[in-house]
Order: sequence, then C-alpha cells, then structure tokens
Amino acid sequence: MSESKIIEELKASIRNIPDFPKPGIQFKDITTLLQNPVYLQTLINLLVKKYQNLGITKVCCIESRGFFIGSIVAYKLNAGIVPIRKPGKLPAETISKSFTLEYGEDSLEIHTDALTKDDVVLMHDDLLATGGTAEAAQNLALDFRIAELYMNFIIELDFLKGRDKLNKNYDIHTLIHF
Amino acid sequence: MSESKIIEELKASIRNIPDFPKPGIQFKDITTLLQNPVYLQTLINLLVKKYQNLGITKVCCIESRGFFIGSIVAYKLNAGIVPIRKPGKLPAETISKSFTLEYGEDSLEIHTDALTKDDVVLMHDDLLATGGTAEAAQNLALDFRIAELYMNFIIELDFLKGRDKLNKNYDIHTLIHF
Repeated sequence: MSESKIIEELKASIRNIPDFPKPGIQFKDITTLLQNPVYLQTLINLLVKKYQNLGITKVCCIESRGFFIGSIVAYKLNAGIVPIRKPGKLPAETISKSFTLEYGEDSLEIHTDALTKDDVVLMHDDLLATGGTAEAAQNLALDFRIAELYMNFIIELDFLKGRDKLNKNYDIHTLIHF
Repeated sequence: MSESKIIEELKASIRNIPDFPKPGIQFKDITTLLQNPVYLQTLINLLVKKYQNLGITKVCCIESRGFFIGSIVAYKLNAGIVPIRKPGKLPAETISKSFTLEYGEDSLEIHTDALTKDDVVLMHDDLLATGGTAEAAQNLALDFRIAELYMNFIIELDFLKGRDKLNKNYDIHTLIHF
C-alpha cells in the first residue's frame, strides 16, 4: 500500500467528537487509533522511518496526549523520553514558558537537567492546533542551545494556522491534516 | 548481570524529591530513568520478558505517568493502548469510578468502547502508593468482564500497603520496592 493510502487509513481511524470540550469544537479523538494494534504499529512504523537516521537523542513529549506516541518513538530510536508538562507537575528544578490561550494564559515546564547542548531533539505532540503550546515547547527546548530540533505532530488543523507561530529554522512534520 | 542487579540499577536511577508535592512526601521521580536510553531499554526488556507470552490484547495506562511505559509495553506486545484518565479528559462516552484520597475524592474514567470481554488486559501505572487509584482502575477494567487482568507498577511504596486494596484474584507485579 502507498504511504498516502496508509495515512488515509490512519486518518479514518481518528474519531470526531463534536462540541468537545466546548460547543463548536470538533475534537479529534486518537484513542480509536491507539487502542487498535494494527493502526498503532502502522503509525509507529511511519514515524520511525522518518526519524531513524537523524541521530535523535531525546524525544520531548508534550503533556499529556503526546506521551503515548512520543514514548514509543523514543524507545524505537534508542533515545530518552523527556516530558514537557503543565505547571507544578515536574518535581525537580524546571524552566517555564508562558503562552496565550483563547481565554487567558497557560505555561509549560521542562526539567533543567532534561536536555544538553549535544542533544538532537524530536518534539512530539498529538495535535498542532493554534500553535501556542507547540511554540512554548519549541522555545523551552531551544533554551538549552541543543544541536538540532525536529517538530512532529500526528494531526494538524490546517485552518488554525498554528504552524505560523513556530520557528521555521526547524523541520516541522505532520502526518494527518484536517 | 542478574535480574536483581539490573533492578537495583534501575532503582538507583530514580530520583528522590523531598517534600513534593507537599511537606513530608518523598516523591519518586522517574524522569531520570525515562531520559536515559540505557535504563529505558533495560526497563522495557524486563517488562516485555514478564508479559510477552500471556496473550495480552490491551494495555490500560493510568493518567498520566503511566502513559510513558504503558504505551511502549503495549507497542512491544502488539496490543492496543487504552488510556484511563481523570474526569472530563476522555471525549467519548465513559464509565467512571470514584476513589478516596487523603483529603476528599477523585475519580477515573475509561471509554465504554475501550475493552471487550475477550480482552486480556495489562493495567500499568508508574507507582502503587495508597492504592486508591489502582483499585478504581482495576474495577473499571473488571466492569467489562474481561478475560484476564494483570496489574503492573514500576514502583511500590510497600509501607503504604496499597496492594491490600487490590483484588487478589489477579496478578500484581511491581519491579522496584521502596
């Protein structure tokens, strides 16, 4: 099967939930993909194929849906897992970046010992929507003056133009576009 | 190296954080294990060795530190990933179980389409402490009248006796005891 056919199948495995978490939002639910072993293996194969020869040393996984696939990719690439979490969740010393939401502000944290300047980092989240989270996560990783950074998302909501918020000096890849 | 030596090494890789999230608590921080590829591969090898010949079809991963290792084990066992989450996080129809905390109550949810009676389930969390979360998660899975259930934790705080809250008809395994 061609890669575009495979991606179409994965896209069809994602469940649309209208009006979640609030009216007007069409939520893309990846649990229907995750719970199916065939789709899960297929997704991981595609991601490993893309990232396997880049010398990636750490996969940063964005809280919390980014933890599922990010962790498996880290394991497959023989890299370490680095959680990027919401405030107050990481127990040791952290650095933090704020970002703007539709209503108000939020922030993300990373442990200060999580990355070094020699790390080649793959940043993973399930979804690129308005881009605030991804921008903050990108800035957190870049604060460590890492060797290289790749951004990866399973799903991108193209009409929200989240990609425009990201630093274009670094590769950005999404598997499934809506 | 013997398995008990390997487990001692993994135990030494876990960082102790005094007084987190509140005074008097010695928090066991697994991020120092996760971010080290050698420890990560070693941990996964041990878990896969234990669970590989049991016909496991789904790995239930308890929010949110259970998502990291649970997802990798699901992938390695060619099983599906099923998230068990805090209230309001899962977007489709759920069932819910409450449990008692030191102060007040909390609950956990699972999607109603996540398991079937044919599933052989591995339930995974990073930590077994007072056992309230694990008990609720065990009861959620058993509501589906699944074929078999195994409970797995990376760390168990033996002095909190969380194990006593769990249904003893099902296997309970912890790698690292404090």
